[in-house]
Amino acid sequence: MEQHQVAAYIDQHRDRWLKKLFELLRIPSISADSRYRPQVRQAGEYCVEWLRQIGFENVGLKETKNHPVVYGDWLHAGNDKPTIMCYGHYDVQPTDPIEKWTSPPFEPVIRDEKIFARGADDNKGQLATQLCALETIFALNKKLPVNVKVLIEGEEESDGRGTFAFVEEHRDFLACDAIAISDSPWFDANTPSLCYSLRGTCALEVKVRGPERDLHSGSYGGYIQNPLNAAAKIIAKLQDERGKILVPGYYDDVVPLTDEERAEFHSVGVDEEQLKRELGVATLWGEEGYTAVERNWARPTLDVCGLWGGYAGEGNKSVIPAEAGFKINSRVVANQKPERCVELITNYIKSVCPPGVRADVKTIAFASPMMVSRESPYLQAAMKAFERTFGKRPKLTREGATIPITALFLSALKAPSILVGHGLLSDVIHSPNENFPLDQLFKGIRGNIALYEEFAHVLHQ
Amino acid sequence: MEQHQVAAYIDQHRDRWLKKLFELLRIPSISADSRYRPQVRQAGEYCVEWLRQIGFENVGLKETKNHPVVYGDWLHAGNDKPTIMCYGHYDVQPTDPIEKWTSPPFEPVIRDEKIFARGADDNKGQLATQLCALETIFALNKKLPVNVKVLIEGEEESDGRGTFAFVEEHRDFLACDAIAISDSPWFDANTPSLCYSLRGTCALEVKVRGPERDLHSGSYGGYIQNPLNAAAKIIAKLQDERGKILVPGYYDDVVPLTDEERAEFHSVGVDEEQLKRELGVATLWGEEGYTAVERNWARPTLDVCGLWGGYAGEGNKSVIPAEAGFKINSRVVANQKPERCVELITNYIKSVCPPGVRADVKTIAFASPMMVSRESPYLQAAMKAFERTFGKRPKLTREGATIPITALFLSALKAPSILVGHGLLSDVIHSPNENFPLDQLFKGIRGNIALYEEFAHVLHQ
Repeated sequence: MEQHQVAAYIDQHRDRWLKKLFELLRIPSISADSRYRPQVRQAGEYCVEWLRQIGFENVGLKETKNHPVVYGDWLHAGNDKPTIMCYGHYDVQPTDPIEKWTSPPFEPVIRDEKIFARGADDNKGQLATQLCALETIFALNKKLPVNVKVLIEGEEESDGRGTFAFVEEHRDFLACDAIAISDSPWFDANTPSLCYSLRGTCALEVKVRGPERDLHSGSYGGYIQNPLNAAAKIIAKLQDERGKILVPGYYDDVVPLTDEERAEFHSVGVDEEQLKRELGVATLWGEEGYTAVERNWARPTLDVCGLWGGYAGEGNKSVIPAEAGFKINSRVVANQKPERCVELITNYIKSVCPPGVRADVKTIAFASPMMVSRESPYLQAAMKAFERTFGKRPKLTREGATIPITALFLSALKAPSILVGHGLLSDVIHSPNENFPLDQLFKGIRGNIALYEEFAHVLHQ
Repeated sequence: MEQHQVAAYIDQHRDRWLKKLFELLRIPSISADSRYRPQVRQAGEYCVEWLRQIGFENVGLKETKNHPVVYGDWLHAGNDKPTIMCYGHYDVQPTDPIEKWTSPPFEPVIRDEKIFARGADDNKGQLATQLCALETIFALNKKLPVNVKVLIEGEEESDGRGTFAFVEEHRDFLACDAIAISDSPWFDANTPSLCYSLRGTCALEVKVRGPERDLHSGSYGGYIQNPLNAAAKIIAKLQDERGKILVPGYYDDVVPLTDEERAEFHSVGVDEEQLKRELGVATLWGEEGYTAVERNWARPTLDVCGLWGGYAGEGNKSVIPAEAGFKINSRVVANQKPERCVELITNYIKSVCPPGVRADVKTIAFASPMMVSRESPYLQAAMKAFERTFGKRPKLTREGATIPITALFLSALKAPSILVGHGLLSDVIHSPNENFPLDQLFKGIRGNIALYEEFAHVLHQ
């Protein structure tokens, strides 16, 4: 396609696209809150209609055991062309604290050249960058350069068990060579980025149980191990003074950072002074021998995310509580296996549990890390597409957070997920006043048009 | 007095006394709950009337800035006789969990030769052992062998600030040589005991503050010190693996146990196997080199009695919380100064607080320990009284718990508190189904009659 044709089409359809996106943003598709179940479905139906208008085939809602998925495909590019899955989600996060929103979350508005609404970035706005790009190619070429399957789920912001099962059960139907996901940020508005690795997660809950009832700390203090003090001792033994995890074997499968990766991370120039100011801390902190961004992107971490026991009210209660509890969230990196990590942590906690109390450890959740080879032809194609569109080589970044379905795509479909999002960190996804700059929306559309063109050059094996 | 006269009087008035005690037990004088304020006062007025009937003078309610105290005296024994303060309290603990009571807490009943009611032991029943004993002596002798001031407070089970201020402000009015307190247990029903030492207490609250808002544990894990992990590290540094407190200087003022005391503690034979079974723990635990009872009675301990931060609900929340908190309750022993101990703990916590978080430490409360010399003539007199009444030398015990007013009596009135209670551990004070065996009630009356007789033999200096 000629660039001037593309530019003219985008210009011509800009207002209609914004109208469509706003209509989708007005639907409060909060999947975590069952009161919004009808609206979640309504958003799915809206996406079905959108796919039909673009020209996709076999379009429809597919039922799962929870919220339905939206599906559509166009598979006429030929067997010598790869099949790309375009994945996104039509559900959104809850809106609380609602009082912190400047304008109502489901009444999208444009202020300062940004769209403000719940879902403006995550994921309705980012999804629009995909759908508008695919429409443009269809409209100008009457066909797509690759085979495309679109999968849009409705429970990414709650617990995607229905979608997970659907993917597991429809491996052949969903078979593809790579997945394009627009659900990640650029490093900043001048730095196009491609994320090739996400951390996984293990979540555990530990109950430390001592005496069979709460005891008076005067009448009984000195007789027994206190479960609260014991819980603290256990937690303190999980890491060394610098945050290195002391669970034996925990680092065995960690893929070490290469010099090339460290150099690239360094070049994105995370401003540690600015990060300290933003978080309001006197010093950053973590495992020795790694920069802050290396620790967040490429090293396992272990955070206690909840802690409870005894009396937390005003004043004083002289009690040795019968029980303390805490929750651990450990982020794991390629190629750690979270099932194994959960087992290692469980065994370690039992081994360091002090005498006189018992530690019961329960696995709450886990998700695998994801890493695409930097040599992957699909990642290389995305690099070329973005370099061509934005005039500079995108940074290859990682993410500290987790998108569990990317690990499932790798294990069930054997296909790498290429994170080609166009968000910004300042879009404050999941928070009040979520927004998406118009500029990023239209950069995304242009970037994604190039993306599918470049995917067509990948030799399909 | 002849023993047969005493026995006959007790026998004759037994039913009337039980009726009086039951009337007092029916008044729900819960001082911690402001809704019961009128009933607290009503219980005080009931005690005023009881003192008048016995023959005390200057009887009345004295207002304090909180609940009133009951006062009455009889000061005609002569200057060569000591002045003894009889101290007790007319308020009671709350009743929750109310559903665990077999019979309603304010409808006293006798089952299995025990009185069941809130306050049956603590302190209405124990107070009755004093008042019935004093009545008996008055009735049979028309006078008392010593000068007696009775002080019954109404806020021992909440926060006795009004009573404390009253004692501070009326030092001359309340001047006495010793205080007799019936608010302690026998070691068991066959082992009369006299307690000569109580531990004191320091209570602190610590807030560990990190980032200025809660952060996503994926997006931010690895950047900063987590306040919950940090709180655990601080707590873990407060004690060594065996519970010895690591705060520098903490043990400097601790009065060491003598061989004689250790032998006596050993002779009361705390059954460690039974204690383990009772508490439901696999092992007792604490500072090396001390038995369980030595640790509880004569060594400082440090218990975390509350711990909170982050998410404690069901499932998982991937958060690095902005703040963690915990409460410390340290029991201190003679001659530790709790003001000093609070300062030592505060400084130590600040010195071990890890980088990247801030520890704010607040003092909540403190109370001094109390120890009466084993050579005190008033303690010796109580020994003789109990030996004469019960046919065996009572055990000299200590208590792990605290009665803060005993330290105030020592500092403001320069008078030792002699703990002459007749409760049993099985009376489960502060818990559902509080009770007081009839046998202990009448043993108490006999023991206290002997007590005042023996006090008369103490050379008044």
